[in-house]
Amino acid sequence: MERCEVVILGSGNVATHLAKAIDKHHHVAQVYSRNHAHASELANSLKDCTPTGNLDQLLTEADVYIVSISDDSIGNVIGAMPKVKGMVVHTSGSVGMESLAHLKNPIGVFYPLQTFSKDTMVDLSDVPFFLEASDENTLHRLEEFGSFLSNKIYYADSEQRKTLHLAAVFACNFFNYLLDISTEILGQKGYALDVLEPLIRLTISKAFEIGAHDSQTGPAVRGDMATINKHLGMLDTNQKEIYRILSQSIIDRHKNTLKYEQN
Amino acid sequence: MERCEVVILGSGNVATHLAKAIDKHHHVAQVYSRNHAHASELANSLKDCTPTGNLDQLLTEADVYIVSISDDSIGNVIGAMPKVKGMVVHTSGSVGMESLAHLKNPIGVFYPLQTFSKDTMVDLSDVPFFLEASDENTLHRLEEFGSFLSNKIYYADSEQRKTLHLAAVFACNFFNYLLDISTEILGQKGYALDVLEPLIRLTISKAFEIGAHDSQTGPAVRGDMATINKHLGMLDTNQKEIYRILSQSIIDRHKNTLKYEQN
Repeated sequence: MERCEVVILGSGNVATHLAKAIDKHHHVAQVYSRNHAHASELANSLKDCTPTGNLDQLLTEADVYIVSISDDSIGNVIGAMPKVKGMVVHTSGSVGMESLAHLKNPIGVFYPLQTFSKDTMVDLSDVPFFLEASDENTLHRLEEFGSFLSNKIYYADSEQRKTLHLAAVFACNFFNYLLDISTEILGQKGYALDVLEPLIRLTISKAFEIGAHDSQTGPAVRGDMATINKHLGMLDTNQKEIYRILSQSIIDRHKNTLKYEQN
Repeated sequence: MERCEVVILGSGNVATHLAKAIDKHHHVAQVYSRNHAHASELANSLKDCTPTGNLDQLLTEADVYIVSISDDSIGNVIGAMPKVKGMVVHTSGSVGMESLAHLKNPIGVFYPLQTFSKDTMVDLSDVPFFLEASDENTLHRLEEFGSFLSNKIYYADSEQRKTLHLAAVFACNFFNYLLDISTEILGQKGYALDVLEPLIRLTISKAFEIGAHDSQTGPAVRGDMATINKHLGMLDTNQKEIYRILSQSIIDRHKNTLKYEQN
């Protein structure tokens, strides 16, 4: 695919990381945000890019329009867009491609399976992108467009993509929350999360090497109720509920296995 | 500390990893397990080591006795030990040092904060060990003993150690279980956990760089109820309960922050 003219709709974390990476290989000509100051901030960090806070002023001749805004706003923004020429894609894990279907344009989805925050650099070349498009030709063009950003370009229909996003909530968002709870517990005795770093890194290596089911360890998988009850007595109401539900679920999943018997 | 004569009581995962590492710098003279075959298997993997399945046959002149068995069995084994000469330590995160207190020996705790399984090699030099001892001299000797195994030797009293163990259950055991759930969800659409690897690794880096509380992302921290409800509809009863409790807890923790407002 030749150098494309690109319009980014959105100025949040995903929009920002994508815009900066796309700008290296293509031309991000315009950034739209309903908040003009946010559009300006992002546009100013790119080469020859104009900000706008007004959908009516959207460039109509660009090759690719990337809608990277909150899931709830996609319908409204798509509904209010002027008629444009190029392909229109969104970047959401949990919104179906059909949300773009009333556009006459070629449509698609360009979903990066990664967590983005403003202050953390991300090497997009290692990030898996999951693509979907309204037709073979659009999919092919989207693949070419994405191949400049990442080495990991996959296909996923809307159902598959929703599943990927759901799995990511467990492995990323909920995992991070467990680290938040650990940090809080450790802090009560003056320790930082760092003391757990070797443990956390090995937990991941084992899950990828032998599978998370087989690498489960801890009091619950051993059916060690004495330790479980001791731990429940050390936790506040909210942490206790989380500990109780997760332990019971691990017990239910493993109670017929050898590990459970080992206790 | 000079080369020590060591007796290992136990033949499970922790006992096995410790025995093999200790054997490089000291002499593991004997391994006890109530299951003689297990004692033999471990003893045979060490240099000049005798197995026994009988506590009465325990060597009495060793320098260090390491009790590395399930928490529930520590009391029984300590109670049935013959009178021995050296220091006696256990390796448990959640059992107090006082469980060894009726011995006349110098006593202590030698707790490695790591997850051990039979088939996964662990580099102990990177593993934090948390030590406690009945007196200054014993603590000093235990420090010297441990310094051959690991570069990370810390002190923790029994309360601190229980807290470390509890935090590790969240960051290791429960985290692994989330990966187990993710693996199951991904498998329904033909994906392996590998597609989440870059996401998981970045989640960890961010938690250590900017702190887990500040790096929280996902539908719950944004108060994105539409996505949360969609996800709940895709899960089985058990997964749904876990998703619901963790999301509600994240919402409660972040509902007065800017991230929540951003949705």
